Amino acid sequence: MGKRNAFYAQSGGVTSVINASACAVIEACRANSDKIGTLYAGQNGILGALHEQLIDTSLESSAAISALKHSPGGAFGSCRYKMKNIHDSDAEYQRLIEVFKAHDIGYFFYNGGGDSADTCLKVSQISDQMGYQIQAIHIPKTIDNDLPLTDCSPGFGSVAKYVAVSTREASLDIASMCASSTKIFILEVMGRHAGWIAAAGGLAAEKAGDPPHIIIFPEIPFSREQFIAKVEQTVKDKGYCVVVASEGASYADGALISGSMHKDAFGHQQLGGVAPTLASMVKHSLGYKYHYALADYLQRSARHIASKTDVEQAYAVGRAAVEKALEGKRAIMVTIERNSGNEYSWSLGEAPLTEVANREKMMPRSFITEDGFGITQEARDYMQPLIMGEDYPPYKNGVPEYAQLKNCLIAKKLDTVFSEA
Amino acid sequence: MGKRNAFYAQSGGVTSVINASACAVIEACRANSDKIGTLYAGQNGILGALHEQLIDTSLESSAAISALKHSPGGAFGSCRYKMKNIHDSDAEYQRLIEVFKAHDIGYFFYNGGGDSADTCLKVSQISDQMGYQIQAIHIPKTIDNDLPLTDCSPGFGSVAKYVAVSTREASLDIASMCASSTKIFILEVMGRHAGWIAAAGGLAAEKAGDPPHIIIFPEIPFSREQFIAKVEQTVKDKGYCVVVASEGASYADGALISGSMHKDAFGHQQLGGVAPTLASMVKHSLGYKYHYALADYLQRSARHIASKTDVEQAYAVGRAAVEKALEGKRAIMVTIERNSGNEYSWSLGEAPLTEVANREKMMPRSFITEDGFGITQEARDYMQPLIMGEDYPPYKNGVPEYAQLKNCLIAKKLDTVFSEA
Repeated sequence: MGKRNAFYAQSGGVTSVINASACAVIEACRANSDKIGTLYAGQNGILGALHEQLIDTSLESSAAISALKHSPGGAFGSCRYKMKNIHDSDAEYQRLIEVFKAHDIGYFFYNGGGDSADTCLKVSQISDQMGYQIQAIHIPKTIDNDLPLTDCSPGFGSVAKYVAVSTREASLDIASMCASSTKIFILEVMGRHAGWIAAAGGLAAEKAGDPPHIIIFPEIPFSREQFIAKVEQTVKDKGYCVVVASEGASYADGALISGSMHKDAFGHQQLGGVAPTLASMVKHSLGYKYHYALADYLQRSARHIASKTDVEQAYAVGRAAVEKALEGKRAIMVTIERNSGNEYSWSLGEAPLTEVANREKMMPRSFITEDGFGITQEARDYMQPLIMGEDYPPYKNGVPEYAQLKNCLIAKKLDTVFSEA
Repeated sequence: MGKRNAFYAQSGGVTSVINASACAVIEACRANSDKIGTLYAGQNGILGALHEQLIDTSLESSAAISALKHSPGGAFGSCRYKMKNIHDSDAEYQRLIEVFKAHDIGYFFYNGGGDSADTCLKVSQISDQMGYQIQAIHIPKTIDNDLPLTDCSPGFGSVAKYVAVSTREASLDIASMCASSTKIFILEVMGRHAGWIAAAGGLAAEKAGDPPHIIIFPEIPFSREQFIAKVEQTVKDKGYCVVVASEGASYADGALISGSMHKDAFGHQQLGGVAPTLASMVKHSLGYKYHYALADYLQRSARHIASKTDVEQAYAVGRAAVEKALEGKRAIMVTIERNSGNEYSWSLGEAPLTEVANREKMMPRSFITEDGFGITQEARDYMQPLIMGEDYPPYKNGVPEYAQLKNCLIAKKLDTVFSEA
């Protein structure tokens, strides 16, 4: 049997280091060109496979591929596409195999979060059923840090660093303005189900009492009264109050804080947002002047302030995926393991996809202080190493110089067309 | 006459480099300790002088002072305090002179924007009238870049760099998601009257057609129809659309885009914000999924990505203020002058405060493209040098290590008390 080709795709919301994993996969495939043929990348993730839109990565220069390591976004395009439930129909999975077969693809590297781990597993299972051999390996990626069986998820360390740095900086700003002006600053961050990202704001504090003074977690039912009381006390003690709030924060009945729909100027229903809603509560209960920021995409694309540890881990899991495939492994996710010992160090491991799929790793309650508004030393000990080190991109004309790929599609071989339902 | 003391205060919204100016003033005073006595800093800006709350900067270590050069926020506290109109009452100015007299302060270094230039001028004039000699020197600072007679204002270069970097990064994020998900990304930035900060987003583009595709300036009357048409065309051409919008953007009749008040979940009136309002327009006219970010304080405190040029200029104007005072200069603002020649270089100058006060430098129309949605090459040529260079702060535990001052107040000498009106 000759050399078989490989396929790589990015899935779901991108991170500032997912391209570091892509870089590693490509470089590892190139380094093993005696065993692996061409590496194709899916244009816009798994949709690229379904539509037979395959990017020939061999046409990219090694300099361009190397630059991926310091470039945010998803270089080949990612997607939010929910594969059909396989119990209803396996047509989509069969289509994938059909495309892989047409291009003699024997390695499937899928770079994503929990949903894509499930897809990766199913690809492996269906290929078995269809008698088509493919080694499906999942490469972990998510800013949400909610993948199980890995100590952390590549992408999280960098968003955590961004949130910690931004919180520290904005806190210095409001501290200098609070005597005569703004007293409340709220930073709204991502995290619909798990509070990992909001928790990272706590790393801005060097000692007890430092900002942020309040963290709002999705894990803790929100009480307006307790929140207002804590804000009032903090302003009394410190002169100002800094809040980091998770977009997923909600009340005891499950209703999102941001979920209070209101009508905008045009009479359209609009989602309120956590930060403006909290700010409004403070304004009307306590009368303080407020400011709030919504980091949104900035937080997950901030490659300029990525964690060096995170970049290294994102690269390592990508390379390991190829190496493990060459060792004959399949239906696994590459994992990051924290070594024992006082000083942080890590190594790579693997977990069977059957154990990864459809499990979310929530933040342990022991990571959150008793009053529900802060992080414990245990949380700090866990998160601190993940934001260590800086890995600055090169600059040109005052802005980071990021990878620019050609992204050439190869000719299609199938005469059938895939239609998204 | 013996050595006289000096006073320094920070005024208005802080910047990521105002402390670099503070650092320079303190270091220059220390270097001239044969001519200048103690340098006092106003606690919370001019309020510190009015309340006789003076910080003794001589108690800070040279390491702590040196660290100010890489620390955002306002190290001694700033304030938003509108001095009374001198034509109504000069009591506040007389109080300032009284405090300065009590502490033998002969040098007044005021670090702020247009309003504080006016205060600085009045202090100089009133001291003349009262026969109390003081050399009032204004040190320019504003992220808004709207001070006249200086090529640029320290603080602007860094916020410009932050906005350009963030725009480039978020653009890569949405570019990779747009095929199956979000198609519009809007970044709302500061700038109530002048569009300098929004314009800086344009520096994210390397060539025509690169994001940002639309910039919304306060200088250009907003047309919903033209905006929606441009968004639609951009999505058609590029697959996605990135917008940088100034908080001060308004309609032809002067009504702010953000000014559409709505009721929040608690029935309270709330200001809408430019980004969510624009996003809502797009959603309801074109149906595209959107994301938006509100940089708020993050943009003006982002010392981690400050412009090296800006840091150097902020330091230079601070040092020059002291040097000019020692040359006997008074009632002037230190200015930055752009030297002629193809390569950017700058030197320092000065402008009489009588010509600085109450003049805002708006962005020239020639800096904005004809359609009102972009910047011209002229704007680019002006702004590009101001964001050049990186000047990273030191890191500890994964976050920047910023200056921590003791900020010890000296004993009061006056038995009179100042009451804010």
